[in-house]
Amino acid sequence: MEKPNYVIVFLRHGESTWNKDNRFTGWTDVPLTETGLQEAVDAGKLLKKEGYQFDLVYTSVLKRSLQTTYYTLFELDQLYLQEIKHWRLNERHYGALQGLNKSETAEKYGDEQVLLWRRSYSIPPPPLTKEDERYPGKDPKYAELKEEDLPLCECLKDTVARVMPLWNEEIVPKIKEGKKLLISAHGNSLRAIVKYLDNMSEEDVIQLNIPTGVPLVYHLDAELKPIKHFYLGDAEEIRKKVQSVKNQAQKK
Amino acid sequence: MEKPNYVIVFLRHGESTWNKDNRFTGWTDVPLTETGLQEAVDAGKLLKKEGYQFDLVYTSVLKRSLQTTYYTLFELDQLYLQEIKHWRLNERHYGALQGLNKSETAEKYGDEQVLLWRRSYSIPPPPLTKEDERYPGKDPKYAELKEEDLPLCECLKDTVARVMPLWNEEIVPKIKEGKKLLISAHGNSLRAIVKYLDNMSEEDVIQLNIPTGVPLVYHLDAELKPIKHFYLGDAEEIRKKVQSVKNQAQKK
Repeated sequence: MEKPNYVIVFLRHGESTWNKDNRFTGWTDVPLTETGLQEAVDAGKLLKKEGYQFDLVYTSVLKRSLQTTYYTLFELDQLYLQEIKHWRLNERHYGALQGLNKSETAEKYGDEQVLLWRRSYSIPPPPLTKEDERYPGKDPKYAELKEEDLPLCECLKDTVARVMPLWNEEIVPKIKEGKKLLISAHGNSLRAIVKYLDNMSEEDVIQLNIPTGVPLVYHLDAELKPIKHFYLGDAEEIRKKVQSVKNQAQKK
Repeated sequence: MEKPNYVIVFLRHGESTWNKDNRFTGWTDVPLTETGLQEAVDAGKLLKKEGYQFDLVYTSVLKRSLQTTYYTLFELDQLYLQEIKHWRLNERHYGALQGLNKSETAEKYGDEQVLLWRRSYSIPPPPLTKEDERYPGKDPKYAELKEEDLPLCECLKDTVARVMPLWNEEIVPKIKEGKKLLISAHGNSLRAIVKYLDNMSEEDVIQLNIPTGVPLVYHLDAELKPIKHFYLGDAEEIRKKVQSVKNQAQKK
């Protein structure tokens, strides 16, 4: 067995209030449900049991990811770790679909069109206008961003393009310094990183369902190529979680 | 009324499990009680009601301050703010007294001696040895500190000397950049800053009792001299809180 040069752990946040309502969330800043908080606690327990000690944490600036980070770190007794809170780790921006539930969306745009937006790698959903209340330029948390960085909507390809500069310019140097990182983020921002690491095709990454609240460990060699990856915890539990994420995606 | 050039808010954490047990805590990393968590939530509500928007947060690396920060920011809907978690904002290090309760301490050292350690500005409590399990050099959260920075014990004068480099070298430049800061810390690390800002005597700072969980607002002029300071919230509530902190200190 090859010994990894670097170990990095990814963590997808659990159930939010809008997951529960089956609404397109994207950059809408909704909190976790009690179930979601418990998923974060459980992730912390798994990491603690396996003796993980981190040096630095990256999270998005959306509270469902920040809450997950807090509850996980508290459980792990590593709340003192510096957290870099970065908008590039945010969830895919769902444009004008944000806030609509499944039936509202189907009514407005038709089932076929919605399926296309959800399943394609490069067809973006309808964009917001800059006058829309949902436009990120109206949110103080993005006040320091350049206008060209503020999305009006994103297809998965756009999300990948937005995540990767953070990975390449900030995260990779930290890994190479030997920092043990926890990256706490969202389904699609994590897909972006995993696609890059595993050199996945556009078709394969669309099929990839990362379970929520389960630490995903990557062992990397000196060139940051994956040696292997695995989830922490009980295999049957994880299988059920993957299936539930898949079902949820198919329902929408 | 003079218009402030800068506004800065200080927040002292609330009740921890060892406050409740009446033990010398210092750098011991104990969590908040339910009451302490609620104090943080209430601080967030007060700040929200008054419309405070921060740019950056400083906290200690002790979890009672980190928990306070999280619950306050969550309530304030500003969880996305960067937090600088710094050991120089830690509570006074209580040396070999850490972990002892009031009666254990009195039994071991005598009432008069204990009073002297508590009430003087420059008489330190008995130091830890470097072999002691409580020595900060054994804690991964201080792994990157130089040995000469790791305290074996501190009198209040030592705490002031340890806090001020952070204030002068890191916090002051941020204030001058125009960053609106929340500083979430402990009774004695906040005393250090307030002593400096208000140019207090050693006798006066010993008498200063900052209430827990109540945002303390300082308005500063262009030279960072205080124009005024005040607590947020109901005056009678705050008076009671100050009295309770004072009583707690006298009991010990």
